[in-house]
Amino acid sequence: MEIIVQKFGGTSVRDERLRERVLQHIAEARRTYDGVVVVVSAMGRKGEPYATDSLLDLLEGRGKYLPARERDLLLTTGEIISAVVLADLLWRQDIPATVFTGAQAGIVTDARFGEAQILDVRPDRLRAALERGRVAVVAGFQGSTEDGELTTLGRGGSDITAVALAAALGARRLDIFTDVNGVFTADPRIVEEARPLKYLTYAEVANLAHLGARVLHPRAVEIAMQYNIPVRVRSTTSDDEGTLIASLSELRARAPFRERVVTGIAHVFGVTQIKVVRETVDPELQLVVFRAMAEHGISVDFINVSPNSVAYTVRDEEGERVAEILRGLGFEPIVTPGCAKVSVVGAGMAGRPGVMSRIVEALVGHDIPILQAADSHTTIWVLVPGERAQDAIRLLHRHFELERE
Amino acid sequence: MEIIVQKFGGTSVRDERLRERVLQHIAEARRTYDGVVVVVSAMGRKGEPYATDSLLDLLEGRGKYLPARERDLLLTTGEIISAVVLADLLWRQDIPATVFTGAQAGIVTDARFGEAQILDVRPDRLRAALERGRVAVVAGFQGSTEDGELTTLGRGGSDITAVALAAALGARRLDIFTDVNGVFTADPRIVEEARPLKYLTYAEVANLAHLGARVLHPRAVEIAMQYNIPVRVRSTTSDDEGTLIASLSELRARAPFRERVVTGIAHVFGVTQIKVVRETVDPELQLVVFRAMAEHGISVDFINVSPNSVAYTVRDEEGERVAEILRGLGFEPIVTPGCAKVSVVGAGMAGRPGVMSRIVEALVGHDIPILQAADSHTTIWVLVPGERAQDAIRLLHRHFELERE
Repeated sequence: MEIIVQKFGGTSVRDERLRERVLQHIAEARRTYDGVVVVVSAMGRKGEPYATDSLLDLLEGRGKYLPARERDLLLTTGEIISAVVLADLLWRQDIPATVFTGAQAGIVTDARFGEAQILDVRPDRLRAALERGRVAVVAGFQGSTEDGELTTLGRGGSDITAVALAAALGARRLDIFTDVNGVFTADPRIVEEARPLKYLTYAEVANLAHLGARVLHPRAVEIAMQYNIPVRVRSTTSDDEGTLIASLSELRARAPFRERVVTGIAHVFGVTQIKVVRETVDPELQLVVFRAMAEHGISVDFINVSPNSVAYTVRDEEGERVAEILRGLGFEPIVTPGCAKVSVVGAGMAGRPGVMSRIVEALVGHDIPILQAADSHTTIWVLVPGERAQDAIRLLHRHFELERE
Repeated sequence: MEIIVQKFGGTSVRDERLRERVLQHIAEARRTYDGVVVVVSAMGRKGEPYATDSLLDLLEGRGKYLPARERDLLLTTGEIISAVVLADLLWRQDIPATVFTGAQAGIVTDARFGEAQILDVRPDRLRAALERGRVAVVAGFQGSTEDGELTTLGRGGSDITAVALAAALGARRLDIFTDVNGVFTADPRIVEEARPLKYLTYAEVANLAHLGARVLHPRAVEIAMQYNIPVRVRSTTSDDEGTLIASLSELRARAPFRERVVTGIAHVFGVTQIKVVRETVDPELQLVVFRAMAEHGISVDFINVSPNSVAYTVRDEEGERVAEILRGLGFEPIVTPGCAKVSVVGAGMAGRPGVMSRIVEALVGHDIPILQAADSHTTIWVLVPGERAQDAIRLLHRHFELERE
């Protein structure tokens, strides 16, 4: 049985016109595949009554007085409502559909309410529905523990539901429908010439996803990579094929080998750089600083250390608090708020010399200081002052000629 | 462990002010009982987004295209949302509460979606929460089949949830909170002197409930009677004790024996009387008429038959259709729309002669024709023309001196 999984986000099901498009994508999939599984998020955005945010707003302080277990119970209703509304549309078009809650779809999780991890997927009931010719409409973002507690998988959790089901069912492909036409070479609101990419490797998209190009939940990418499920990110409102995300070998089989070194530029705004510099070597420095961060539950990123200095970034909202903590420990931190982390991503850069040098060329040549840098085999990150971030992204996009197909 | 079950209807949890009162009732119950179980309906009425009616309105034709299984999935969300919102209120007052869906509360039903029957109640998890000092807040109106399909119990189903849990937990009492101050001797909108009753037997309230005085779901009354659970019907907005519903022997132990013959007057408006009269005895008549009704799925009531005639009532909405069906079979039915069924209820009338005679006295003495009559050991029903129904109710109320304590 050839199965496809289609995931529709909250904005894809927010009104009748969009749901009509969703219907067309499902009908199209039924012509090509034996089994169609549809995963949906809660309908709409903040302000619409059945959106996740609106449900949270029913609680004082968005649920801060309530245990996470009860908050999760509330949130699971959003996706169930959305799934039933979509199934209703399908039945009206004579497409038989069966709705499954996360629990009924066999999504078994641990009991970490609010950010549960999937432990197992038991898609027997889902498969039985597919075999009876039904479209299976699954409420995303949720699961159930072995003893029947309802859980949610955290924001973006519907992506995880979709890819976990695709893996468990051995699906041919997962289509993630969203409001953009695939994954872009950079944010088109910043770079006018940015264009959707035809192909991306899992590793590339993982780096993009971690870095603010909100295309796909990072855990979803990891599962897709692990089970080798090709994922298409595409627009609900068009028939374009969007971006195909797969392994490098899979992509090579489909397309001529790409000489491209850099694939895209991602960014995260609102980052504060923290630096602590000692005049002499201080063997305790790193230990004291990072232990303090851990004790205060502050997540740190972009770490650069030397024998007499420590530098790292935190979110802008935490910058002042971090500075106070460090001052309380007798340090004199240098705090630079409002920075941007810009990342140059490309599977082709692995083992290729000269990429960092080209980045420096592009930025420093235009008087944009690089406050920090780091690299992995598919990504180079640079930290730049926030007011120069948009320039930096545009310059890098042009420098690596990403506007060219 | 002394347990009380409290059930709050949709109008009791519709706004902050009312939910504040609900909180007080729960806090009060915690002072008296070791375990408090709270059953809630969906919040509010038609027009408010999380009410059952509003959820149904999300579906085309209120779900007529959708299988009942999927409709039920949607409807279960209303009570879950309501239960979590109430739990949030409790936590804010430092009252620890745990929410249970119907399935989690152990309500096991058959798979008759939309009107499922409870097969079993397994309240182990609920009891465990009570033992940990938690208030158990249960989403009413729903359950789950053995294989995890979510079901609803039909309108008024939260009453059934409440009484089933009370029975399974061996609760001391069930309090049904509503927007009136108990069960009244008659509808106070019709009879100015109508007053709340202090006590009622199960049998009396069963007849009242079946007959339009919408106090308690008839199936709920039957379960309460079977397990001998005392039920109090009381107002959310007051501390009055409302009406206590129990067995006759229980009530006798609590209160001086009541000499009252008649307890209350109930009514159903909007009834059409259908009569078919033959000139001679027709052995086929009853068979043909009632088979036709059954085949067309028409529910009949108030049946009077004789060898050459058949009389019965249907709902006004079906009157014209029924007349056509009968004409199609060659009959000439006499159709009297807009009638009212008025019932005189009282556990004390069993075996007492003269009640029917007093009813006739009251009505015919004021030129109100009795179109039909019937009786059981605790109720006498009369069918009267709709335009005289309010008079009939007032006259009977006065005639039996129901305004007197």
